[in-house]
Amino acid sequence: MGTFDTTTPEPRVASLLLRRPLRLGLAADLTNLIYSQGGRILYHDQVVDSDSGHYYTCLKWNASDMKCPDADMTVRLAALFGDGPDTEWSVRYSDQPMRMAVFVSKDPWCLYDILARSHSGEWNVQVPLIISNHPDLKHIADRFGIKFMLFSVNKENKNEIETSQLDLLKNEQIDFVVLARYMQILSGRLVQAFPSRIINIHHAFLPSFPGAKPYHAARERGVKMIGATSHYVTETLDAGPIIEQDVLRVSHRHSVQDLVRFGRDLEKIVLARAIWSHIQRKVIVHNGRTVVFD
Amino acid sequence: MGTFDTTTPEPRVASLLLRRPLRLGLAADLTNLIYSQGGRILYHDQVVDSDSGHYYTCLKWNASDMKCPDADMTVRLAALFGDGPDTEWSVRYSDQPMRMAVFVSKDPWCLYDILARSHSGEWNVQVPLIISNHPDLKHIADRFGIKFMLFSVNKENKNEIETSQLDLLKNEQIDFVVLARYMQILSGRLVQAFPSRIINIHHAFLPSFPGAKPYHAARERGVKMIGATSHYVTETLDAGPIIEQDVLRVSHRHSVQDLVRFGRDLEKIVLARAIWSHIQRKVIVHNGRTVVFD
Amino acid sequence: MGTFDTTTPEPRVASLLLRRPLRLGLAADLTNLIYSQGGRILYHDQVVDSDSGHYYTCLKWNASDMKCPDADMTVRLAALFGDGPDTEWSVRYSDQPMRMAVFVSKDPWCLYDILARSHSGEWNVQVPLIISNHPDLKHIADRFGIKFMLFSVNKENKNEIETSQLDLLKNEQIDFVVLARYMQILSGRLVQAFPSRIINIHHAFLPSFPGAKPYHAARERGVKMIGATSHYVTETLDAGPIIEQDVLRVSHRHSVQDLVRFGRDLEKIVLARAIWSHIQRKVIVHNGRTVVFD
Amino acid sequence: MGTFDTTTPEPRVASLLLRRPLRLGLAADLTNLIYSQGGRILYHDQVVDSDSGHYYTCLKWNASDMKCPDADMTVRLAALFGDGPDTEWSVRYSDQPMRMAVFVSKDPWCLYDILARSHSGEWNVQVPLIISNHPDLKHIADRFGIKFMLFSVNKENKNEIETSQLDLLKNEQIDFVVLARYMQILSGRLVQAFPSRIINIHHAFLPSFPGAKPYHAARERGVKMIGATSHYVTETLDAGPIIEQDVLRVSHRHSVQDLVRFGRDLEKIVLARAIWSHIQRKVIVHNGRTVVFD
Repeated sequence: MGTFDTTTPEPRVASLLLRRPLRLGLAADLTNLIYSQGGRILYHDQVVDSDSGHYYTCLKWNASDMKCPDADMTVRLAALFGDGPDTEWSVRYSDQPMRMAVFVSKDPWCLYDILARSHSGEWNVQVPLIISNHPDLKHIADRFGIKFMLFSVNKENKNEIETSQLDLLKNEQIDFVVLARYMQILSGRLVQAFPSRIINIHHAFLPSFPGAKPYHAARERGVKMIGATSHYVTETLDAGPIIEQDVLRVSHRHSVQDLVRFGRDLEKIVLARAIWSHIQRKVIVHNGRTVVFD
Repeated sequence: MGTFDTTTPEPRVASLLLRRPLRLGLAADLTNLIYSQGGRILYHDQVVDSDSGHYYTCLKWNASDMKCPDADMTVRLAALFGDGPDTEWSVRYSDQPMRMAVFVSKDPWCLYDILARSHSGEWNVQVPLIISNHPDLKHIADRFGIKFMLFSVNKENKNEIETSQLDLLKNEQIDFVVLARYMQILSGRLVQAFPSRIINIHHAFLPSFPGAKPYHAARERGVKMIGATSHYVTETLDAGPIIEQDVLRVSHRHSVQDLVRFGRDLEKIVLARAIWSHIQRKVIVHNGRTVVFD
Repeated sequence: MGTFDTTTPEPRVASLLLRRPLRLGLAADLTNLIYSQGGRILYHDQVVDSDSGHYYTCLKWNASDMKCPDADMTVRLAALFGDGPDTEWSVRYSDQPMRMAVFVSKDPWCLYDILARSHSGEWNVQVPLIISNHPDLKHIADRFGIKFMLFSVNKENKNEIETSQLDLLKNEQIDFVVLARYMQILSGRLVQAFPSRIINIHHAFLPSFPGAKPYHAARERGVKMIGATSHYVTETLDAGPIIEQDVLRVSHRHSVQDLVRFGRDLEKIVLARAIWSHIQRKVIVHNGRTVVFD
Repeated sequence: MGTFDTTTPEPRVASLLLRRPLRLGLAADLTNLIYSQGGRILYHDQVVDSDSGHYYTCLKWNASDMKCPDADMTVRLAALFGDGPDTEWSVRYSDQPMRMAVFVSKDPWCLYDILARSHSGEWNVQVPLIISNHPDLKHIADRFGIKFMLFSVNKENKNEIETSQLDLLKNEQIDFVVLARYMQILSGRLVQAFPSRIINIHHAFLPSFPGAKPYHAARERGVKMIGATSHYVTETLDAGPIIEQDVLRVSHRHSVQDLVRFGRDLEKIVLARAIWSHIQRKVIVHNGRTVVFD
């Protein structure tokens, strides 16, 4: 499996994401709690929004030798954070890797990249399911031994198919969904079932060129840079919280085909960075935008 | 004057910009003509738009020892290029530096940068005139010994003032205008008087966030990059041909003030690059977009 | 095979790379020759090095309806370019895709990316052979149905193994070799057999940090950016002509593990861009550096 | 003075930089202390080096309404941080702007940029002194009304001149020195007098091309990107802690003159960013590298 060593036992890592109104001393109380229970802190980053006074933190610790069981730890954390308004938190352990479903249509580049990263052990994630509205990429799913479910959506069966898809996602215990160049708009029902847990890659530097042929529009407009944007899906099209963006410099020398080619690589890399941040539990969504820890 | 040596005699450089439908052998005929008249080619770049078959070229030669006078050369070039439809060209010599007028309001960063570059000899340009609708930056004009004309525009006097401004630009033999954070919309009359010769800096990565408070909008939207765009002014606001763009990566850590600060530096650099390309005669405008030679 | 359409017949494209001392009118003679034989020019870029007077050009044309056979065309081109000193050229047709061998050790990321691109039809290239000094990545070769040859090199058998490898490369009619994180130094014999046809990816922004642990060195030095470099292999280690480079911004927040992770993505993308330019026949090597056409 | 409003009373801001071994609860104790004395926190960022367990923080608060005088606050902070080994901290108030001396030779671009930023109020800094080994830039100092001291250094007078320069820096109560393209190597005596308080701009992407003609070397090597590096000066040439770096993409199309021109803009921007971080007291130097807060 290459240089991603999977034989030495990895430590069991707990990762906590928390957002709530700032309370002085909370960070010290939190780190004290973890130390007192035998945790060793591996990563701690925190941000205070100076406008709203809201506090965001990402904390990871080696949980291999905790004195109390996970359930107890959850109770203690809940007591610490309180249940006041505007408070949200979760903790998750690395021996329960997230389960990801990938939705695709006909474009292979993001799918290949995702499967290479998950399969080689670069990402600590499981990919049990690929859903598509076209049969074209089934051969890739087969190559990697992953279940490939084809749904030929049309107006009549759309509602019924979504019910099947929701069942599938539930049965496979899917934690989050990646739209890897999936060329169909999700219904509100699906979006609501996975709040801030559906990641899309948009083939443009949002909010520019939101339309269907952004590279043609970009070439027409004579832009000197093109970009790609990865964001969480909300019910408003292309307006979800941005996770990652990047750009490349272009010139009059580049044809639309060149822009499309650059765009493919941008999409692939930008989507991969967004997924990595999500898997690493480094993203908090609040008020329609993200805090993405380094 | 620093390391921009202005004592050794510079060669007299001719620079030609041409666009027209492609004709085979034209490039060879053109270079032959220049060689035969004693010119030595210093720079030659050319582009063919494969969609339209249009040909664009930028050619510079050492014109210190030409056998024929400039006027003769112009006649020969005209004969070579023909006067068919969709043909435009011009030639200009480095011993006639372009004359630039700068329009400003209250923001100093672009103005300082422009004057430092022109004054130190980094740019081969003359800046005889600064026009403003506010007195705030007069002290900078004074520091560099440049005429500063203040026009307090309002609804009643707008038309009259524009007539005065056009007269001023004409009397000072201004070749092109730079809007260096000029916070007023030019009338169609002024724009038409300087087609593809008014350069603006837009405080955003066009076509995103075209409004008045782009950094607030960017922060609100949670973007991960901010940008700036320099373009020629046309009668449609912020839709003119883009000359140069650049971006900087930002994160949730950055306040609106940080974005504004990054934006200032982006504006300054992007505008300077656009002006440099214009002064070097490396920009051709066609069909609403630019060819910018390296 | 996704959106890379392989069913519509592609035009047969000829691509010419030429470098030689500048001769006036050569470009016109060349384009005239191609038109007169029924070729339609798709791409033409040219550069003159103003210091040396050397001329470089890359020209592609639709060769589906040529009046003369390829061999005749070669004769005509040879007559046009002459056989003077410092002249090199070659022409190749798109219906003979290049054949690439990939050398790997244990790291999977570049290999996966190369196979995804070649397999999906994004690249017009054939990959019949993977050579490795470790068995770790055989499962990837199997997944894509590609011959995987394992050579356990040691001091005693090194010479003998290279002979076998050279035979293999010859038998498989390999055009060029990609070292995709191959952790062994090639002998002079192999390098000489593929001049400017072995592409390496170097895990650093050359010429910085040429050693074995560049990310540790970078972190130790506190750099604010890391990079990767793809270059042709010459007999002098890491000094071959650079084809492509890129960088990413880092900060004190990033651990060595973060730098390694960023480095992997940089390596993958930079190597892919270099291979693309090579396959597209857009690279000319001269005097130890490259001309890489857009 | 443009849009940098200097008429509304700015709050008095205290800024603290601290590094010491991590102690749990220190952050809470520190913020408690500041709140209890009437300070309002404006910015707080902290980093723990997970390898060394070292703690770094940058904390800014509105000190307009403190209950205790500055001297008392200093005593309280000292008590909190202790005087254990490897502990360093300082606090400074915004109504005592830092005083900067600029050393220059013949190149004007960085000097113009520094003076424009300090003069327009963009930077909260005073520039009472420019020192040079050449008379060329005196006209710029005059334009901005700043004392310009010329020292024609040679082997005989070098020691004596440095004594005069040190006296000057002392008399002008200079806090830190910027080498804005100063083409002379400082002696160990000067460097020791301003530890981590002399900022240099290096015309290359360190550690590459450390020599005197980096752009020629870069062009010769055919690099695809050029860079600039700003660092604190130590007694080992060009090896001091890096504060900021940036790069620009270049190609075979660019002449050495183009690289020099790009380099100028990179130097100017990279140096300005480094100075800004220093003035904002966002840089901590430790173990030969920097922590630069956002």
